[in-house]
Amino acid sequence: MATTLLTGGTVVSATGRTAADVLLDGESIAAVLAPGSTLLGHDLAASVDTVIDATGKYVIPGGIDAHTHMQLPFGGTSASDTFETGTRAAAWGGTTTIVDFAVQRTGERVQDGLAHWHELAAGNCAIDYGFHQIVGGVDADSLAALPGLIDEGISSFKMFMAYPGVFYADDAQILRAMQVAADTGLLTMMHAENGPVIDVLAEQLIEKGKTSPYFHGVARAWQMEEEATHRAIMLSHLTGAPLYVVHVSAKQAVEQLAWARDNGQNVFGETCPQYLYLSLEDQLGASSEEWGDFEGAKWVCSTPLRSKHEGHQHHMWQALRTNDIQMVSTDHCPFCMKDQKTLGQGDFRAIPNGIGSVEHRMDLMYQGVVTGQITLERWVELTSTTPARMFGMYGKKGVIAPGADADIVVYDPAGHTSIGLGTRPDGSPTGRSHHMNMDHSAWEGYEIDGHVDTVISRGKVVVDDGAYVGAPGDGRFVKRGLSQYLI
Amino acid sequence: MATTLLTGGTVVSATGRTAADVLLDGESIAAVLAPGSTLLGHDLAASVDTVIDATGKYVIPGGIDAHTHMQLPFGGTSASDTFETGTRAAAWGGTTTIVDFAVQRTGERVQDGLAHWHELAAGNCAIDYGFHQIVGGVDADSLAALPGLIDEGISSFKMFMAYPGVFYADDAQILRAMQVAADTGLLTMMHAENGPVIDVLAEQLIEKGKTSPYFHGVARAWQMEEEATHRAIMLSHLTGAPLYVVHVSAKQAVEQLAWARDNGQNVFGETCPQYLYLSLEDQLGASSEEWGDFEGAKWVCSTPLRSKHEGHQHHMWQALRTNDIQMVSTDHCPFCMKDQKTLGQGDFRAIPNGIGSVEHRMDLMYQGVVTGQITLERWVELTSTTPARMFGMYGKKGVIAPGADADIVVYDPAGHTSIGLGTRPDGSPTGRSHHMNMDHSAWEGYEIDGHVDTVISRGKVVVDDGAYVGAPGDGRFVKRGLSQYLI
Amino acid sequence: MATTLLTGGTVVSATGRTAADVLLDGESIAAVLAPGSTLLGHDLAASVDTVIDATGKYVIPGGIDAHTHMQLPFGGTSASDTFETGTRAAAWGGTTTIVDFAVQRTGERVQDGLAHWHELAAGNCAIDYGFHQIVGGVDADSLAALPGLIDEGISSFKMFMAYPGVFYADDAQILRAMQVAADTGLLTMMHAENGPVIDVLAEQLIEKGKTSPYFHGVARAWQMEEEATHRAIMLSHLTGAPLYVVHVSAKQAVEQLAWARDNGQNVFGETCPQYLYLSLEDQLGASSEEWGDFEGAKWVCSTPLRSKHEGHQHHMWQALRTNDIQMVSTDHCPFCMKDQKTLGQGDFRAIPNGIGSVEHRMDLMYQGVVTGQITLERWVELTSTTPARMFGMYGKKGVIAPGADADIVVYDPAGHTSIGLGTRPDGSPTGRSHHMNMDHSAWEGYEIDGHVDTVISRGKVVVDDGAYVGAPGDGRFVKRGLSQYLI
Amino acid sequence: MATTLLTGGTVVSATGRTAADVLLDGESIAAVLAPGSTLLGHDLAASVDTVIDATGKYVIPGGIDAHTHMQLPFGGTSASDTFETGTRAAAWGGTTTIVDFAVQRTGERVQDGLAHWHELAAGNCAIDYGFHQIVGGVDADSLAALPGLIDEGISSFKMFMAYPGVFYADDAQILRAMQVAADTGLLTMMHAENGPVIDVLAEQLIEKGKTSPYFHGVARAWQMEEEATHRAIMLSHLTGAPLYVVHVSAKQAVEQLAWARDNGQNVFGETCPQYLYLSLEDQLGASSEEWGDFEGAKWVCSTPLRSKHEGHQHHMWQALRTNDIQMVSTDHCPFCMKDQKTLGQGDFRAIPNGIGSVEHRMDLMYQGVVTGQITLERWVELTSTTPARMFGMYGKKGVIAPGADADIVVYDPAGHTSIGLGTRPDGSPTGRSHHMNMDHSAWEGYEIDGHVDTVISRGKVVVDDGAYVGAPGDGRFVKRGLSQYLI
Repeated sequence: MATTLLTGGTVVSATGRTAADVLLDGESIAAVLAPGSTLLGHDLAASVDTVIDATGKYVIPGGIDAHTHMQLPFGGTSASDTFETGTRAAAWGGTTTIVDFAVQRTGERVQDGLAHWHELAAGNCAIDYGFHQIVGGVDADSLAALPGLIDEGISSFKMFMAYPGVFYADDAQILRAMQVAADTGLLTMMHAENGPVIDVLAEQLIEKGKTSPYFHGVARAWQMEEEATHRAIMLSHLTGAPLYVVHVSAKQAVEQLAWARDNGQNVFGETCPQYLYLSLEDQLGASSEEWGDFEGAKWVCSTPLRSKHEGHQHHMWQALRTNDIQMVSTDHCPFCMKDQKTLGQGDFRAIPNGIGSVEHRMDLMYQGVVTGQITLERWVELTSTTPARMFGMYGKKGVIAPGADADIVVYDPAGHTSIGLGTRPDGSPTGRSHHMNMDHSAWEGYEIDGHVDTVISRGKVVVDDGAYVGAPGDGRFVKRGLSQYLI
Repeated sequence: MATTLLTGGTVVSATGRTAADVLLDGESIAAVLAPGSTLLGHDLAASVDTVIDATGKYVIPGGIDAHTHMQLPFGGTSASDTFETGTRAAAWGGTTTIVDFAVQRTGERVQDGLAHWHELAAGNCAIDYGFHQIVGGVDADSLAALPGLIDEGISSFKMFMAYPGVFYADDAQILRAMQVAADTGLLTMMHAENGPVIDVLAEQLIEKGKTSPYFHGVARAWQMEEEATHRAIMLSHLTGAPLYVVHVSAKQAVEQLAWARDNGQNVFGETCPQYLYLSLEDQLGASSEEWGDFEGAKWVCSTPLRSKHEGHQHHMWQALRTNDIQMVSTDHCPFCMKDQKTLGQGDFRAIPNGIGSVEHRMDLMYQGVVTGQITLERWVELTSTTPARMFGMYGKKGVIAPGADADIVVYDPAGHTSIGLGTRPDGSPTGRSHHMNMDHSAWEGYEIDGHVDTVISRGKVVVDDGAYVGAPGDGRFVKRGLSQYLI
Repeated sequence: MATTLLTGGTVVSATGRTAADVLLDGESIAAVLAPGSTLLGHDLAASVDTVIDATGKYVIPGGIDAHTHMQLPFGGTSASDTFETGTRAAAWGGTTTIVDFAVQRTGERVQDGLAHWHELAAGNCAIDYGFHQIVGGVDADSLAALPGLIDEGISSFKMFMAYPGVFYADDAQILRAMQVAADTGLLTMMHAENGPVIDVLAEQLIEKGKTSPYFHGVARAWQMEEEATHRAIMLSHLTGAPLYVVHVSAKQAVEQLAWARDNGQNVFGETCPQYLYLSLEDQLGASSEEWGDFEGAKWVCSTPLRSKHEGHQHHMWQALRTNDIQMVSTDHCPFCMKDQKTLGQGDFRAIPNGIGSVEHRMDLMYQGVVTGQITLERWVELTSTTPARMFGMYGKKGVIAPGADADIVVYDPAGHTSIGLGTRPDGSPTGRSHHMNMDHSAWEGYEIDGHVDTVISRGKVVVDDGAYVGAPGDGRFVKRGLSQYLI
Repeated sequence: MATTLLTGGTVVSATGRTAADVLLDGESIAAVLAPGSTLLGHDLAASVDTVIDATGKYVIPGGIDAHTHMQLPFGGTSASDTFETGTRAAAWGGTTTIVDFAVQRTGERVQDGLAHWHELAAGNCAIDYGFHQIVGGVDADSLAALPGLIDEGISSFKMFMAYPGVFYADDAQILRAMQVAADTGLLTMMHAENGPVIDVLAEQLIEKGKTSPYFHGVARAWQMEEEATHRAIMLSHLTGAPLYVVHVSAKQAVEQLAWARDNGQNVFGETCPQYLYLSLEDQLGASSEEWGDFEGAKWVCSTPLRSKHEGHQHHMWQALRTNDIQMVSTDHCPFCMKDQKTLGQGDFRAIPNGIGSVEHRMDLMYQGVVTGQITLERWVELTSTTPARMFGMYGKKGVIAPGADADIVVYDPAGHTSIGLGTRPDGSPTGRSHHMNMDHSAWEGYEIDGHVDTVISRGKVVVDDGAYVGAPGDGRFVKRGLSQYLI
């Protein structure tokens, strides 16, 4: 098996940074060593197949994006990234593992939903991938199927307090599923928005002729995110099932999480880059020649972007520091404007919900290091180490240590990354690019004071010096263990 | 330089555990390697001077006790452990670094206080040691001396809201010192009890004839710890100086810390084993033939032990899990009963304050792992990694990584430790022992389901298989950098 | 019209007490006067038809019980007090106004439900009565009917977050109804328990053979009261509709109310005597020869009695002082053991929910004055003045002032009241009595250090010196205005 | 004795409003009667000496300003209103009782300070007056004198956590005084600002040349008001002494009060009109030809005005609604610009602290009724009923009821009041006036949609139709009982 030595870099972990070389042997990390390429007189550099010079750069565990939706069927269309395009874009951005959501719906068997997701992903992925299980229909059958997921390497499942008639689980269903979770160690993930109320608010807005994308965010009031978060917390308290709340966007929801955590509950929260950088007013202001005020559809996601006048972004960055929010994922769920987002012209309810960010998460969060919002160590913790621990992959993923998978990113703090579309509507090059299968980007124009130089996935260099050098099928399914954050 | 290979153990860090070998080269860690003792075909085991078999055991970074008071003059006597006896006891218990408190008093020069502490420690220590600076007299001179401490490797200083006439600093003094801290990056440590009020309460108890040791705890009401904690937090908010509150014992003080942290303040708290295991009622119940109800003097410390009826211990363990408390130190401040504690017979105010625990901290906290209060990783984090980060030693201390000092403990989860006195009053052996220079122990009778097998200090084995094999002067002064927890 | 002068008493209001005479002229209060029975030389005592000597006694506005359920159909039976028996019992206990709940169910017209309630009450009541409207089926028709209630003198309506399939309203329904409330000034009352979850918990207990009355309280976990309370608060925040939470029993629900009120929301809470005096363990311990452990059915109510080990009662009394709870009603919903409660033998779910207290509220709360839990003024405020203000009756009710209805109670602090059954199962007299149509009492054995001496309803003495001297039909329907607590 | 009948008005109390006539007999209220001037056939209007027509107007209990400082020596000068001028101005504004602060200083006898205050006031006051006792020097003598105050009709005393070297009490002193308060029922009032810290901040600002009045507010940081408030709360908790915090201005201090109250502590707070209407930026912007930026000195008071960018005013109005603040007083402490405020030119520390508002409180708070911030009833409660209850005067003061002192204001909601100086600097009339002995007004230009028409003090009309018709000496000393808010 091939051996590689990364020399001269600064290895960054969740707790600190060390000048160290890293030796890869095949798919694994063999050693972390004092710099210098020799050990007890043995010349390691001369002994390896490849030496990668990381001088002046950060050597970090590959990013783990624990929330993606490749090819997700939603609102009569499907997310525009396949596992092939989406994981390749992830690799470009320094992410070496995704955890996607297999889908079960009412009346379907959980096992079938999972099997279908395996079919979609197998042989197509550029990087390693795991699955959470969406339980879109909680009934006796699906409940009975849950414990078996653990042997399949699926240690977490998601329910939705939103989307009645689609994925929605009512409180009685959530109770029963959480009881199973408490018994088995499965981690309950929750989309915490009060869907029945939001749907009425949306209907009322439409009736008043308020149909443009901006009103998507108005309908999904923060009160109903806060409320659902509290409700999930109390069901967690009642059942003893730990709780992981996805895509937290309202500061008031964060306050609920902090309250529960201070009280000793095993309650966790994830946010996404869009809630740290973008705001509802971006949608309001968005109006292009091409799309008019429907331009705002590019930023339609759920939970929605929040108003910049209410202090959510400030509070969310703070929560990343205080550990009231423990992780940053993307909720990557890309839809093109053409033929997809446009389904909702005239009725924001029909706009497929989602923003594509899987490629940009590591960069966008690094920019938080540059601006002083988080430390370098916290960057690694939020994007890799904690996702690995939270979802039962630590040891193999999320850390640079012997025995771990050789998932490594060489990140250059002196580099620069311009996020954009590659081409303007008129076809002219923008000088900025992305690799997701989308005809637009929520992040166009963002500039990052850092750069993903080299990406290694299980010992194989897949991105190097601005080129993708991997292939579909490089990535394998990751069987995950139980969450390592639960006592 | 001598080389050592620890093989077969489980290396535990703050974030996880890994089966790995650890190679020591002289005083430093040279590599952390996949198990097997070979690397790229090189036989490491054959290349080293010594192989230590850690099979079935935990290999952890040596404990860091960030709060000790060797030889501290207090109440007309001095703490009974010298740097020699105290650091040797620490080594016995798996602690490889202490941070002791150099003392400046009103009218003295800070530099002189520090120099005196260097004299006391130099050449006598079994393990490495650093200093915090006590500023017992805040005035123009001492304030002017503070910034210079950083170059001396002293990056933290402590003030006292208690002990009027001794170490006490009033709010105006604290303000000025915190302003210096905010400007320089020095970390402010605080003994947070409202001393002026406590002294009145104590005086009133004495006047009523309530003179026994138990009333020490009654006088030091939790309200006055909570209050001082809040006051320190607000002064921290006003000045922007991060705050570290020492020996937190009241749950209400923890709530104040949690409140400040949720609000984004850089506020930290430390607790001690006595507040996790012992209670005020232990003092009340203590009455031996030898000492009568003065027996309770053995547990006189400040902050005091709290009533078991108020839920403090439960809350404190929870705070260790929620990270509202970040560290466990000992506040090791030993006094013998004979000639020392007895100074306070007839007036609890004259009992020297302090409990000796420097030897037992790692064991006592490991017992929390056994009972399920904390995880194995959290044990390492609370006792080593966070102390290193908090006090600017990480990289050299607190982590098993290349380039770090080879401060390592091999801990046997299948071993057993009985804490005690060695001999009974009648001279018969108890079968349990300790090595601190004390004629009693607050911990007599505690049983630990684990054992410190081997202790390595900067590459040298100092405790091995039940024998101390080091020497005074093994330990060196650690120049610390600024706290690594501050953005 | 007849005139009456109450002389020599102490008139107690919500804010203080005054030595004053009170002159009644027909159905109204004509004047409150300095004691002495003369005014500007006019001899009032000689001018009136009747003089009542209240020397040494409290003269208070008649009690208002804003939460009763006379004749309520529930679980296949009906509450055992008719308007005749129930209001007569109320009069015995010093209550001169009740607000009962007219019922609309799914598929029924609100107007019909209200009309039916008028039929039940008209001509039968001993004291004045008003109605809240239960909206048991929120749909377009019932929503459209709500604004019309105001003209009918019904200014408040209740929904249930519990009892799926019976009265239950889901969140979308509550939203729509609260929107109407916000537009019209109607006050939204809420039974705040998460019924769907509770029903699953109850089903699971039954499946495990846990069928006795005690498990009613186990199933209705406090977490689900707290949760529903928070949810109602957030829907109130979203819509701007003020909120009144009925029969609060859990301290955690009180904490939610306090939080909302501190934040400036118009959120109110009512508790009941049972939550101040009785506990879940009363049910557990109850086991008579006659009923075995089904004896506990006597105390089955919803929200349930809470565990005495959790501090709810202490917290609830405190909330009465801090004004986090503003009122005390009874939720009077009496069922006999025979033929009614016994419907639930073998399955606690079939036990009709309810306790009868309409007769004892004024006494039980006065006992709180005796024990120092509340002041005399707070007693009047909690039981009369605030109910009048909250439900739009102040001016006519809830105050002793000119122009107000002459609803007055003469209460003797030197008297004594023994609450009981009148007879023992063997027919022997207990020396203690009640007048509700129930074959048992939750309050048997309670002793009150005070006594309702005289009860005047709109100028007519209805209870005097231990005799009921009124008649069915004395009481009239009270058209209420909008709540006077809303800005 | 003369008799008066007020007819046709709306009597407003803390709990509601009633159409009623009020009969005065000599100095007291004899009756509150149904409108119409007849009673049992007796023609009251014909029987009285005077009839005052209050048709269309509010009849309210006279205002009680529980915080004034007439003639207070401060900073080398004395407050510019004597008891004669100040109480006359109060009467003009509808206030019929003040509670002023008698002063004891270190080394003085409490009895002497009180006696001196009696001398200053006796025979000079236009309205009734009581005293709180300032204890500016807590020592064995003053502590011993405290219980005797109760017999003198002084049931409350104030200490200062600010003003070291002047009135300052340290925590040990406060403890001892609160212990006396807890034993005797005296109410502890507290100026809650951390003076020692503020004095350092002020000194540092002066050293930097920041000497203008604006920096008075900068030095007195809200953190140090919040801190002192919390400290006082904890000393109250420790001792069991109820606490009344004067002139609360920071929202964070309000949050501390709310926290303590939710926890069941007897903790109260007062705010002043300046904290509801004025802000720190008013001072920053103030710059006249005459005074330059020293114009801001007009608004120098302690606690200081707070920044309008921080939401204090919004929060304070809310606290008046939520009852987290229970009263509004003025802290009337007037100083002229000429010869008084100007002492601080070049050093804001030498500006006498204080604003004059005793004349305007009732009007300014009524304007809050007009703007919907508070209800009419809450206006009466905040300005009269609660002050009477809090400070042991209820029954005689604070209520319109038989036996109460005939202190009554007829307030015209259709009237208008322009607050101002009377003359402009050039001597021309402004059309707006005030009657306090000040050469400026903090309130110049405020317009009130209401008017004080008639003011009756113990049965005597003192202000009528725009004329002052009373005389010095009308007002008498009020012996107060213990606070009626304490259980």
